[in-house]
Amino acid sequence: MKTFSIEEITTLVNGEQIGLCEDIINAPEQIENAVKGNVTFIGSSKYARLWENSNASAAIVYEGINIVPEEGKAFIKVKNPDLAMAVLLEAFEPESPCFEIDIHPTAVIDKTATLGKGCKVGANSYIGKNVTLGDNVVIYPNVSIFDDTTIGNETVIWSGTVIRERTKIGSHCIFHINVSIGADGFGYRPSSDGRGLVKIIHIGNVVIGNAVEIGANSCVDRGKFSSTILGDGCKIDNLVQIGHNSVLGRCCIMAGHSGLAGSVTLGDGVIIGGSASIKDHVTIHSGAKVGAGSGVIADVPAGKSVVGYPACDSREKMKQWVALRKLGRS
Amino acid sequence: MKTFSIEEITTLVNGEQIGLCEDIINAPEQIENAVKGNVTFIGSSKYARLWENSNASAAIVYEGINIVPEEGKAFIKVKNPDLAMAVLLEAFEPESPCFEIDIHPTAVIDKTATLGKGCKVGANSYIGKNVTLGDNVVIYPNVSIFDDTTIGNETVIWSGTVIRERTKIGSHCIFHINVSIGADGFGYRPSSDGRGLVKIIHIGNVVIGNAVEIGANSCVDRGKFSSTILGDGCKIDNLVQIGHNSVLGRCCIMAGHSGLAGSVTLGDGVIIGGSASIKDHVTIHSGAKVGAGSGVIADVPAGKSVVGYPACDSREKMKQWVALRKLGRS
Amino acid sequence: MKTFSIEEITTLVNGEQIGLCEDIINAPEQIENAVKGNVTFIGSSKYARLWENSNASAAIVYEGINIVPEEGKAFIKVKNPDLAMAVLLEAFEPESPCFEIDIHPTAVIDKTATLGKGCKVGANSYIGKNVTLGDNVVIYPNVSIFDDTTIGNETVIWSGTVIRERTKIGSHCIFHINVSIGADGFGYRPSSDGRGLVKIIHIGNVVIGNAVEIGANSCVDRGKFSSTILGDGCKIDNLVQIGHNSVLGRCCIMAGHSGLAGSVTLGDGVIIGGSASIKDHVTIHSGAKVGAGSGVIADVPAGKSVVGYPACDSREKMKQWVALRKLGRS
Repeated sequence: MKTFSIEEITTLVNGEQIGLCEDIINAPEQIENAVKGNVTFIGSSKYARLWENSNASAAIVYEGINIVPEEGKAFIKVKNPDLAMAVLLEAFEPESPCFEIDIHPTAVIDKTATLGKGCKVGANSYIGKNVTLGDNVVIYPNVSIFDDTTIGNETVIWSGTVIRERTKIGSHCIFHINVSIGADGFGYRPSSDGRGLVKIIHIGNVVIGNAVEIGANSCVDRGKFSSTILGDGCKIDNLVQIGHNSVLGRCCIMAGHSGLAGSVTLGDGVIIGGSASIKDHVTIHSGAKVGAGSGVIADVPAGKSVVGYPACDSREKMKQWVALRKLGRS
Repeated sequence: MKTFSIEEITTLVNGEQIGLCEDIINAPEQIENAVKGNVTFIGSSKYARLWENSNASAAIVYEGINIVPEEGKAFIKVKNPDLAMAVLLEAFEPESPCFEIDIHPTAVIDKTATLGKGCKVGANSYIGKNVTLGDNVVIYPNVSIFDDTTIGNETVIWSGTVIRERTKIGSHCIFHINVSIGADGFGYRPSSDGRGLVKIIHIGNVVIGNAVEIGANSCVDRGKFSSTILGDGCKIDNLVQIGHNSVLGRCCIMAGHSGLAGSVTLGDGVIIGGSASIKDHVTIHSGAKVGAGSGVIADVPAGKSVVGYPACDSREKMKQWVALRKLGRS
Repeated sequence: MKTFSIEEITTLVNGEQIGLCEDIINAPEQIENAVKGNVTFIGSSKYARLWENSNASAAIVYEGINIVPEEGKAFIKVKNPDLAMAVLLEAFEPESPCFEIDIHPTAVIDKTATLGKGCKVGANSYIGKNVTLGDNVVIYPNVSIFDDTTIGNETVIWSGTVIRERTKIGSHCIFHINVSIGADGFGYRPSSDGRGLVKIIHIGNVVIGNAVEIGANSCVDRGKFSSTILGDGCKIDNLVQIGHNSVLGRCCIMAGHSGLAGSVTLGDGVIIGGSASIKDHVTIHSGAKVGAGSGVIADVPAGKSVVGYPACDSREKMKQWVALRKLGRS
C-alpha cells in the first residue's frame, strides 16, 4: 500500500495546506466513509456539511469554500478538486496484477506471431497466426486473438476478451473483461424461396485507433466490407453494441447498454447516453449529445442535444413531457 | 434420472393424494407438454381446462380448485402449488457437472493462493496471487480470478467469468457464465488542452455479500475509491450493468438488461424491472419498484412504484398513457 | 487474397458487362472508399452521383439506372444488386482461422465425449462428459461445453462461448463470441419468513434447431422444466437476452439488446427490433414485427407491426407521437 504525508499530497495536487496533521495518508476516500489516515474531497458546500462528522485526516477543498479544518486535521485548498482527485487516484493506484513469467508456458502462441519487447501473455491465452503485438502489450489469462490481428504498443487486454481475425488495434488501448471484437455483422437476405434467411458474409474487419477503451462485455462487429472504425480516444462503457460498418470519430463516449445499429456515423466528441440506441445509417455530427434511453431515428446536427424516443431537441422533449404530465392530470 | 412414486411426491410436498396411479414419476413438466410418467401443476382454473387432454400421470393441484382426476391418474392437493413446484424441482434436480479430479492439472493456481477444504478448480482456469477460497468453492473451467480476491464457502463460479483483483465475495453465491466483476468504472475528465479525455483511475473494489446470484454476461464495476457493494441475497439477472460505487442493500432484484449508472443507491428489497436504467447518484429507497423499461432520473421514496421515462408514479403514468392514446385518436 | 477478372465477376453475378476494364478485382468495397482494383455497388441513383469521383474499377449496377461507365471502367448490370453483393461477398470470403492440428493438445476433452469426423477443437477448450459432436464441428479456443450436450454437423462455436449441460444444438449453427447458453433461469420465491428470496431450481434445458446464429455476448437461459426452444433458422444479434422457457418458431430475428422475459412465445418469422423488450408469458404471433426500443406487454396478432412503450399498432403510435409533438409546441 502506498502512503504519503499531507505535505507530499499538497505538492502533488499543487495546493495550499491549511492546518496541521501528522497522520500518514494511506488512501483517498469519499467523505461519508473516510477514516483516520484518509484524505477526502470537498468540492461544494453540500459536502462541507459532512466534514464535521468525518474522521478523515485531511480534505482537498475547493478554494472558494469558506471552512476551517478542526484541531489535528488539515485542508488542502485547490482550484479544481476534481482534477486533484484524479491526480491522487493516480498516485495511490495499486500495481496491476503482474506475471512472474512474461509468457506463461500454458499460453498457446502460433510460431508465426510477432511479439514486441516487454510483452506479457497470461495463462491459457491463445494467439493465432501472423498476429503482431507492439511493445509492452499485456494479454491477461484466457484471452483469444485470431489470425492477422495487429495490436499497438502498451495496449492492455483483460481476460475473457476475444479479438477476431484481421482486427487492427492502436496503442495505449484498454480492452476490459469479456469484450467481443470482430464478430460477424448481423445481416441476412430472404432465401430464393422466400421461406428462409441466407447469411450475408461479412468480409470486412474492425479498426480501432489509439487510446481507445472498451468496457466489459461490449461488442464491436466487423464490417460487411470495409471496416467498422473507432477513432482515437473513444471511450466505450460496458455492454455496448457497435454494429457493422459504424464509424466513430475522435473521443466519442458511449455509456452502458447503448448501441449503434449498422452503418451509423458519429462525428468527433459525440456523447451517447446509457441505453440509447441509434438507428442504422444515421449520422450524429460532432459534439452532439444523445440523452440516456433515447432512440435516435434521424441525423443529429453538430452540437445539438437530443433526447427521447423518437429523439428530438432536448428542450422540445422536456416541453412534451410537461404537457403529457398535465394531460394525465386533467 | 431420479424417480419417485406418487406417494413419495405427496409426502415431499405435504399434500393430499386423490385418485390412484401406479406410474413412476420421472420429471415435473408443464401441462401442455406433459407425458405419462410426468407430474404437472394446476394452480388455477385456467390450467384446469388443459387437464382433460393431458397425458400427465399426476398433477399438483391448488386445493381450492374443484376438479376430479381421471381413471388411472392422481391429483395431489396442496395449499400452495408454486411452493410445491419449487420443492419438486429441487427433488428432481440433476447433479451439476462434476470433476473426477478436484484440481484439474491444467488449472494455473498461483502458489500464494489459499484453497479451503473440498474446493474444485476446473480445466484451464487461472487463480492469481493471494487469492483465498473458502471451503467447497467450485470454479468451473476457463474462469479467471485475480490477485487478493477472497471468496466465501460454497460459492460457485461458472465458466467464462472473470473476477478482477481485490474483490470480496461472500458465501453461497452463484456467478453464472461470462460474468465480469471489477472492471474499471467509466470515468474520464477533459484533458488540459480540452481536446481529449483522460482516464480517471479507479482504485476501489467490488464487495459482494452472501447468497448473491449474478446472471450471465452481467457486469459490476469497481469503485473509484471505496467499493461497489451488493448486499446479501441480491439477485441479478443476465446482461445487467452495475456502475462504479453503486450500493445495493439486501435482497434487491434486477431483471435482464437493467442498469445502474455510477453511485446509485438501492435500499433493501428494491425491484428493478427489465431494461430499466437508473441515473447516476439517484437513491431508490427500500421496497420501491421500478417498472420494466423505465428511466429513473430522480430519487424514489420507500415502497413506491414508478414506471416510464422519465419515471413517475405508476398510476400517474398509466393515466398519461391513456390520455396520449385518446389524443392520438382525436 | 482472392482475385477475379471482371468477366469472371459478371458470370458469378449473372449480369451483363458494359464497358471494358482489364483491372484484376481484389475486393468489393463501398463506393466512398473504393480504390483501383475494387468493385463497388450502385443500387440507386443516390449512389450513382458518387460514381464520378470513385476510383473503383467496376460497379455492379441496378439495370434500371441510366448511367455510363467512364473510360477504362466497367459496369455489370444486374436485376438485384443486393443479391449480387451477397454472392460477391461469398466469392471473396477469406478463409476462417484454421488449425494445423485438429484437436489441440491443450484442449481438455472428457474420455466419454464422442466427436464426429473432421471435428476441430481449439486450444484450451473444455468438453465435458458424454458430449456428442456431429461431423465437422469447429470449436475455437477457450470454449467450454458441459456434460450431455449434443451438437449437430458443421456447427461452429467461437471463443469465449459457454454451453451448459444437456443443451441440444442442431447442425449448421454459428455461436459467436462469449455467448452464454443454458444458465439458470431467473426465478425466486419469497422465503418462508418473508425476509429473503429462495432460488427456484431450473432443471430444464435449451434446445436449438438447425441454421441458428447467436450473436456475441447473447444469453439463452435453460427452462425451469421443459426447454427453452429456438426454432430452425432463428438469427439472434449481439447482447440479446432470451429468458427461460421462451419458445421461438422458425426464422425469427432478434436485433441487438432486445430481450424476451420468461415464457415468451414467438411464432414463425417474427422480427424483434433492437433494444425491444417483451414481457413474460406474452405471445407474438407469426410474421409480426416489434419496432426498435419497444416494450411489449400484451399479445401481438399475426402479421401486425407494433412499436412504442407500451407497444401498440405502429400507425396509431405515430399519430400519438405527432399529437404529443403538437401538444409540446402549443
